[in-house]
Amino acid sequence: MRQPVELPKAYRLLNHGPTVLVTSQHGGRRNVMAAAWSMPLDFDPPKVAVVIDKATLTRELVEASGHFALNIPGRALAEATLAVGNASGRELPEGEDKFARYGLATFAASRIVAPLLEGCVGWLECQVVREPHNERTYDLFIGEVVAAHADARVFSGGRWHYDAQTDPALRTLHYVAGGAFFAIGEAFETRALAPRPAQS
Amino acid sequence: MRQPVELPKAYRLLNHGPTVLVTSQHGGRRNVMAAAWSMPLDFDPPKVAVVIDKATLTRELVEASGHFALNIPGRALAEATLAVGNASGRELPEGEDKFARYGLATFAASRIVAPLLEGCVGWLECQVVREPHNERTYDLFIGEVVAAHADARVFSGGRWHYDAQTDPALRTLHYVAGGAFFAIGEAFETRALAPRPAQS
Repeated sequence: MRQPVELPKAYRLLNHGPTVLVTSQHGGRRNVMAAAWSMPLDFDPPKVAVVIDKATLTRELVEASGHFALNIPGRALAEATLAVGNASGRELPEGEDKFARYGLATFAASRIVAPLLEGCVGWLECQVVREPHNERTYDLFIGEVVAAHADARVFSGGRWHYDAQTDPALRTLHYVAGGAFFAIGEAFETRALAPRPAQS
Repeated sequence: MRQPVELPKAYRLLNHGPTVLVTSQHGGRRNVMAAAWSMPLDFDPPKVAVVIDKATLTRELVEASGHFALNIPGRALAEATLAVGNASGRELPEGEDKFARYGLATFAASRIVAPLLEGCVGWLECQVVREPHNERTYDLFIGEVVAAHADARVFSGGRWHYDAQTDPALRTLHYVAGGAFFAIGEAFETRALAPRPAQS
């Protein structure tokens, strides 16, 4: 039920502001961290922006490998999102990683080395567009999306499909602080407000 | 019911990924546009990042004035959000603006010239941190938040408060595409997943 997302529609995976999990790998080490601070940056070729703190192991692996993935967890992964957001990959014993520590399964990406996280509802494989000033000054990383995938139960035809029948475990997470989240809520369509009549 | 938000908590207005309305003003002209692409960039002093396309009147006013505001609309403003997202301030007759055209009331910001939009649930007043390379290459603007406010019915003590009793019109908007939105959904608290027992 995992299907490719065509690249010009990949931004739509992030457009509504979900919290993401950043995965990375380099030289036999791999890591996963949570990031509430990410956004689309361009349509086609799609680009994304994400904040990756200097203190993190993810930062080291992303800088060394030139790649990262943004994995979009559903509510089923809320406890795991909080766990990998609180723990640092740097503090683990040699040879252990957060995937093993928290029992998180992965699968291979199609275009990059970083692993993708099983059980998410969307995935963006990204190649870093090097911007040393942004990275140093703002911890801001820019990535070009080179492949994207989604769980077809909730994202297909370039659109999220959440309705009253959707398994709540598949709703995207929107982090607040201190273990508090929102799940994405009701979908609705609207028309643009009409202009007022011209004043005479 | 509009109350100041202390600056170190201002990032929480954006942390869960709402769509925003960018207001701007310079030399007697003012404008409002919709932006799904924004995120927090730092805690204290708080910074934000937002994408402002070269073709927009907002871009011209932000570059000239060095300020912008991010206004966070609730569902009550969904039709207005779509309207100001579809229309360009450049196409209006001399002397008219989108506020008048769509009957949108404003109030004065405390630290910047740009007007703030009545009926929103949060507001961030921002001073541009000039980064010409980012602006030119990615349409990416960085702002330092110099004042923030929120509707105390849904944001107080540095936290959003949405529950089953909340007026649905106050729920933040999360734009998808083509007139389709999500409202922010159920709030929940979780504990971090416990590590697996060490393997022997």
